[in-house]
Amino acid sequence: MNNVNKLKFNLIKTDGSARLGQIQTQRGIINTPAFIPVGTLATVKSMSVEELKEIGAEIILSNTYHLYLRPGHDVIRTLGGLHKFMKWDGPILTDSGGFQVFSLSPLRKITEEGVEFRSHLDGSTHFLTPELAMEIQGALGSDIAMAFDECTPYPATREYALTSLQLTTKWAKRCLEARDINTPLTPLDRGEVRQALFAIVQGGVFKDLRKQSAEELMSMDFDGYALGGLSVGEPKDLMYEMINYTTPLLPKEKARYLMGIGDLNDVLSAVADGIDMFDCVMPTRNARNGTLFTSNGRVSIKREEFKQDSSPLDPECSCYTCRNYSKAYLRHLYMSREILSMRLNTYHNLHFFLEFFRKMREAIAKGEFAQFRKEQTPIMQKNFHED
Amino acid sequence: MNNVNKLKFNLIKTDGSARLGQIQTQRGIINTPAFIPVGTLATVKSMSVEELKEIGAEIILSNTYHLYLRPGHDVIRTLGGLHKFMKWDGPILTDSGGFQVFSLSPLRKITEEGVEFRSHLDGSTHFLTPELAMEIQGALGSDIAMAFDECTPYPATREYALTSLQLTTKWAKRCLEARDINTPLTPLDRGEVRQALFAIVQGGVFKDLRKQSAEELMSMDFDGYALGGLSVGEPKDLMYEMINYTTPLLPKEKARYLMGIGDLNDVLSAVADGIDMFDCVMPTRNARNGTLFTSNGRVSIKREEFKQDSSPLDPECSCYTCRNYSKAYLRHLYMSREILSMRLNTYHNLHFFLEFFRKMREAIAKGEFAQFRKEQTPIMQKNFHED
Repeated sequence: MNNVNKLKFNLIKTDGSARLGQIQTQRGIINTPAFIPVGTLATVKSMSVEELKEIGAEIILSNTYHLYLRPGHDVIRTLGGLHKFMKWDGPILTDSGGFQVFSLSPLRKITEEGVEFRSHLDGSTHFLTPELAMEIQGALGSDIAMAFDECTPYPATREYALTSLQLTTKWAKRCLEARDINTPLTPLDRGEVRQALFAIVQGGVFKDLRKQSAEELMSMDFDGYALGGLSVGEPKDLMYEMINYTTPLLPKEKARYLMGIGDLNDVLSAVADGIDMFDCVMPTRNARNGTLFTSNGRVSIKREEFKQDSSPLDPECSCYTCRNYSKAYLRHLYMSREILSMRLNTYHNLHFFLEFFRKMREAIAKGEFAQFRKEQTPIMQKNFHED
Repeated sequence: MNNVNKLKFNLIKTDGSARLGQIQTQRGIINTPAFIPVGTLATVKSMSVEELKEIGAEIILSNTYHLYLRPGHDVIRTLGGLHKFMKWDGPILTDSGGFQVFSLSPLRKITEEGVEFRSHLDGSTHFLTPELAMEIQGALGSDIAMAFDECTPYPATREYALTSLQLTTKWAKRCLEARDINTPLTPLDRGEVRQALFAIVQGGVFKDLRKQSAEELMSMDFDGYALGGLSVGEPKDLMYEMINYTTPLLPKEKARYLMGIGDLNDVLSAVADGIDMFDCVMPTRNARNGTLFTSNGRVSIKREEFKQDSSPLDPECSCYTCRNYSKAYLRHLYMSREILSMRLNTYHNLHFFLEFFRKMREAIAKGEFAQFRKEQTPIMQKNFHED
């Protein structure tokens, strides 16, 4: 396994602690800071893969937990992997299932060996281990896999958080070993391309434990490092503090990924701390619920005042939705629960997020990120109309 | 109103009673026999207008009743008409609301003046008259409007059917007068293009009453003639008999439209009788319910046997869905209730219908329609798998 192609991260420029970079995968380059649209069940809800390309998505995320339960990773392996199954030829990142076991399963039992959980679909019992998480991700054939972790809840005692991060370390080691046994279904390869594996730093809201977790994981050769166990109920300030403290501890030459966070204010703050990758259901889920992001703040499309409004949602936006449709039409589709509503809204929100990230990269490239952050923060905190 | 452009129907060729023709509108040509996808609420469910063009839709239908209730025809008038609202620049046909009042309203009261009905959305009371139906359709700015009719139910006594058709005649006359007062929002025009108006032949399942209705309506100058009050519960044979009897009574030089019927066996039979236009929710509604049309009969995509089936839905189909996706993926999306499922299924079914109609036109052009019908009838009656 010495001559395999490994994931490369090129750090192009820093602006303060903010980083401009590129992740090179066999399926294409990911410009960082990167936003990763979420395609839980092998589809980014309502979008075609062509539309994802059109708006500039360079990588998508799929969920191991969901695909394991439905249609099953064996099915996807048989069909040639996730890329072929869903016809997305760009990079795919899969999570490990750790967070979903934590957030979706009605019952779970954690042991050193793994986690017993109940399916949120039919209540059936399953046992997820680091080895199985890697087997599933190998079968899916994602470009970037995540190590199976225990997502430390909030609140948790220091003692719990310590035991938990130590378990995550042990599991990470087992994932690394399992990955090197697997022959992942990577694209161009007959084994020449190794599935990249990222570890997840835990430690709750205790700085020294975050440091301990980071150091234990950094002693092993992962391709990137993620921050996990955040945005699980803790106050925002505490979350910011943890990100600000932990991020600089991570290796400069590897990609840093803040899992599940996509509020654009949080993103601005985390990019300033040196985070490179983000994923979140916010743009897609909000779109389906009629909350749209614009250059003037968030807008609820169902507002009565839009009933006869012939203007586009965001005059500054160049996306298909804003180029073609009025607020009145978007409102009508939303009120009528039309499928096209979810399509047009999702297209716009994802386009907005990807554009926002492009502008962040531009600002870092120009050494103007602090200014960009200062300008955008009040806008991103704003609801254009209070509901 | 003498120098206005009127709808033109060119009869190109007949093959037996089957007709190959073209309807010329200011917004484009409709090749007949034509299938009209249904876009009830100013959107063909799950499809973009670009996708409709891509699969060769030449005209779509929107529902007067639905758009009157939501968002309201005044809203659409203010926004410049239906074409601008939904960004479809091809021809649009609107129905009159007569059928929906009959099929959707929980309560209705018919008088000579019009129909009082309750909204299926909120129970509010409304009064629809021929004049209002024309005002709504004028506000929508459709290319082809339908006269407001009473859809005679089945079963109905001869006496009821007679009174009903006479009412439809009176209403048709009032629609014609109202149309000539309206200034419809037609596209290219400042009044130079007149909204076309089709009358609807009623008469229940009584041949002489069908004849009477046709003759009364033909004594007025409509742009086309439709058969209504069919597929409302009567036996199929009786429906076929009515179509077979009534169609030849209609003017040869005008388009003939069989409303709301889209079962492809019924279509084959009606085309053989000389019908030119069809609309139906079948391809779109069935798509969302997982029933797909193929060159080998109907398929229920949820079948267990497709779980690992890497083959396309219909190997003979050239549509986006069949070119790109496996039955396994379509099944997975359907089982997961993903929005993309409705998109891919609808795209395929509409493509299948439009291709089927293209092949019918080709067969008529070659004088081989009888042969085509004979070949296709058993296939269209077939469920590839019985559920």
